[in-house]
Amino acid sequence: MEKWRTSYRLLKFCNGISYRNSKYQFSGRDSWSIHGKCYSSVASTVLQRNPSFSGITFDDISYFKKILGDRGVVQDEMALESANTDWMHKYRGNSKLMLQPRTTDEVSQILKYCNTRSLAVVPQGGNTGLVGGSVPVFDEFPRILLKVIINVGSMNKILSFDKVGGVLVCEAGCILENLISFLDTRGFIMPLDLGAKGSCQIGGNVSTNAGGLRLLRYGSLHGTVLGLEAVLANGTVLDMLGTLRKDNTGYDLKHLFIGSEGSLGIVTKVSILTPPKLSSVNIAFLACSDYSSCQKLLLEAKRKLGEILSAFEFLDSDAMNLVLKHLDGVRNPLPPSIHNFYILIETTGSNESFDKENLEAFLLHAMESGLVTDGVLAQDMNQASSFWHIREGLPEALMKAGAVYKYDLSIPLEHMYELVEEMRARLDAEANVVAYGHLGDGNLHLNISAPKYDDKILAQIEPFVYEWTSKKRGSISAEHGLGLMKANKIHYSKSPETVDLMASIKKLLDPNGILNPYKVLPSTLVSQT
Amino acid sequence: MEKWRTSYRLLKFCNGISYRNSKYQFSGRDSWSIHGKCYSSVASTVLQRNPSFSGITFDDISYFKKILGDRGVVQDEMALESANTDWMHKYRGNSKLMLQPRTTDEVSQILKYCNTRSLAVVPQGGNTGLVGGSVPVFDEFPRILLKVIINVGSMNKILSFDKVGGVLVCEAGCILENLISFLDTRGFIMPLDLGAKGSCQIGGNVSTNAGGLRLLRYGSLHGTVLGLEAVLANGTVLDMLGTLRKDNTGYDLKHLFIGSEGSLGIVTKVSILTPPKLSSVNIAFLACSDYSSCQKLLLEAKRKLGEILSAFEFLDSDAMNLVLKHLDGVRNPLPPSIHNFYILIETTGSNESFDKENLEAFLLHAMESGLVTDGVLAQDMNQASSFWHIREGLPEALMKAGAVYKYDLSIPLEHMYELVEEMRARLDAEANVVAYGHLGDGNLHLNISAPKYDDKILAQIEPFVYEWTSKKRGSISAEHGLGLMKANKIHYSKSPETVDLMASIKKLLDPNGILNPYKVLPSTLVSQT
Repeated sequence: MEKWRTSYRLLKFCNGISYRNSKYQFSGRDSWSIHGKCYSSVASTVLQRNPSFSGITFDDISYFKKILGDRGVVQDEMALESANTDWMHKYRGNSKLMLQPRTTDEVSQILKYCNTRSLAVVPQGGNTGLVGGSVPVFDEFPRILLKVIINVGSMNKILSFDKVGGVLVCEAGCILENLISFLDTRGFIMPLDLGAKGSCQIGGNVSTNAGGLRLLRYGSLHGTVLGLEAVLANGTVLDMLGTLRKDNTGYDLKHLFIGSEGSLGIVTKVSILTPPKLSSVNIAFLACSDYSSCQKLLLEAKRKLGEILSAFEFLDSDAMNLVLKHLDGVRNPLPPSIHNFYILIETTGSNESFDKENLEAFLLHAMESGLVTDGVLAQDMNQASSFWHIREGLPEALMKAGAVYKYDLSIPLEHMYELVEEMRARLDAEANVVAYGHLGDGNLHLNISAPKYDDKILAQIEPFVYEWTSKKRGSISAEHGLGLMKANKIHYSKSPETVDLMASIKKLLDPNGILNPYKVLPSTLVSQT
Repeated sequence: MEKWRTSYRLLKFCNGISYRNSKYQFSGRDSWSIHGKCYSSVASTVLQRNPSFSGITFDDISYFKKILGDRGVVQDEMALESANTDWMHKYRGNSKLMLQPRTTDEVSQILKYCNTRSLAVVPQGGNTGLVGGSVPVFDEFPRILLKVIINVGSMNKILSFDKVGGVLVCEAGCILENLISFLDTRGFIMPLDLGAKGSCQIGGNVSTNAGGLRLLRYGSLHGTVLGLEAVLANGTVLDMLGTLRKDNTGYDLKHLFIGSEGSLGIVTKVSILTPPKLSSVNIAFLACSDYSSCQKLLLEAKRKLGEILSAFEFLDSDAMNLVLKHLDGVRNPLPPSIHNFYILIETTGSNESFDKENLEAFLLHAMESGLVTDGVLAQDMNQASSFWHIREGLPEALMKAGAVYKYDLSIPLEHMYELVEEMRARLDAEANVVAYGHLGDGNLHLNISAPKYDDKILAQIEPFVYEWTSKKRGSISAEHGLGLMKANKIHYSKSPETVDLMASIKKLLDPNGILNPYKVLPSTLVSQT
């Protein structure tokens, strides 16, 4: 078998356009070229391709058409364009084949065939991830197609809803916003909500263990997902689609598929516990003078607002300035002043007057004790939306501002903002360090905004940011996953013994490594097992 | 290697005393006898011993003493008595050796040695389980000790508590009640609470995925446990002891150890998210005329009490009568009348007056709409405790009433009580069918109380109860686990493909099968892999 090795030195976050100093070696039967693909945002990454994967043949395509019909086999380049690129245009693949199964049985047949033929597969939902987890890579052969995209977007039926228990069962391709709408009319909500809700799919949410805005209140998907159906690499269908809150009959294997980014199996159905929709939502937008006050305010909010607290978000003044500069129609709800930190607090409860009264008392106390320097309570839905828009508009504002280096970190609360300050001290003034995130969950979104991508800036950020996070026993990926971007950085957050066991489990469930290769686990480790 | 096979036909739930019709075969170097052990409550069970386990030698004991000192190696029969018996005296082992490590490193050294020597191990915490999961079995050789108990009760230190994030890190041997007391003084609570809190240990709680009284509000341990340290069969220490709410860096392997009943590794440390203690607790005790009203009341409670609802328990009139008859000083808080169902509702919130007002309005509405036929709101802590005592005293009342066949089931709410009615129709009048449980979680505790254990009664109950539950896609063990009692019944609640994968994972993590053998997974399946 031919051996090929590719080593890259990528010099910038690319836009699917170009490399500098790309180095590659190839020893085999054919030459190959790079077609504007970006595999990693890392200054220096060595990836080793798995040489055992086959190329796709006409026979394969005929077989897939037999299973799915012409409709389910997409080869049109225009149609494939969006499936080959992530939404930030940071990662670009070149797959020429996307399969769109409509049933679990079709997914099973496809995978069984791909496994037998050693065809590599990229499972894909809404393709809204931020770490390159759902984009195909290594399709460089000009004459051989190497990667099959399996998109479950056509599996989008709601299967059942139990309005006593609040249990929703649906197919993996259901768009989150559609599920939210479905539940809304029945007096329930999804336990997760995120900016990408208009495109992201529940199967993808589960596969990446999406966090989002409601985690503080309703917990992670490990707690709210009651059951799953997943298809293994060999086509075996695992029916774990329970609808029960309690089931202690053996190992709870659904958790293996929550957050494994499609590398252990393809999630095809989801059963999820949905909370009742509560009628009273209140939102306050506050300012704090220092980070210590933000922490204390969180503690107070947990204590005083306890059962009605549903969001505790923060942004620093650099983040606020960025939004004000780049998003049309946004204004600071607090009178012009120098505020260092802004906090958005949301409460959700069942009694409008009590909740408002409770929140007002809390805010009054926070003002009197000096934790909060200024603040405003939303008077209507429009004002509430405008407060949320500041927080939710940050990714868009950052994209408009130029180049952006994005880090999604969990850091013990007491240390979280130290990283931001140290990062500012390391970087020149032209790199704008912007911090915001889900403070209530200990989740910092650290963004370095710069006029353009620059090696020197990147070298100042990495590996420092990962090493710093690791020293504080933080997580280098709080909610985005590892994907391609951080697969080789897993050791910053996980012990070697744990990573070894992950690799063994990958080998057990997907011995040929066909599911989402080069993602999640370090490539060296996967090839060793 | 000698082959032995044992087949039992057990005729009653025994008290460690006797068998009838025990059948056994032995072909090997020695004869053996049964010493009053009870392996299963099943009418007919075939267990095949794993012949590859070694007997414990004097050299082994010397080695353990070198690691643990004399203190940590318990051979005294009196001291071993309680470790060899479950608290219901239903299962009885005969192990002659209990090890009491004080550190993770000691656990690691012990397991590494046991794995090399093929010594079978029973991990044990507070030994409060109800399915024989923590009791040693197969120690029948009169001259060979076959099973080592590893009791982690000496590992009982609280390691850290973060009062901003509410994250508690402690060793596995901490008794649940001690953790509750520790947190109480700091203004926090444990997210789980159960009747056995005075003895059960957090490591055991995690290993059995204990449910209990607060699951309705705070969810399962899969959601609240943030990190674990566990030792694998070969002595490898897995440091997964994160303290972060969000960490999406690879597979979240801690979930494998939550609920696997010590069969994949020994949990040595736990990191858990603890909710703030809220000051206002209110309790109502209500009566409903039929099961349909109970269901509707639950739906209303979720909607109207939403964020403050913390328990929704039920018992039927047979359960109430049993408590009144067998527990001293208990009285029905509702005036004498024929009530078919009783509901205990607890709310927990931060505002006494609002919560009470809210609960009163809810109860008034429930009375007016006819869902509730009578009800009373606890006026003080004593009255509140007396309400809880009715519900929590049921297991004790059942023990006092005579023989009891216990089933812990999750059943979709709409069908739950049908099973109770069908069971009553199957059984003679002398068998008293008693139903209670965590209605808010869909968890039914079905108990059949009889003057004495009787094959005829058991044959009327099993396999009917499991088949019925399976048909409704329920769980044959909602919160107690499978242990020894239901290991061979896993197929009633899990698909064959899922069970096969469980067995493969067991084989991967514990290739010699030394950890808690004969528990959780069907013995035939484990031996095949």
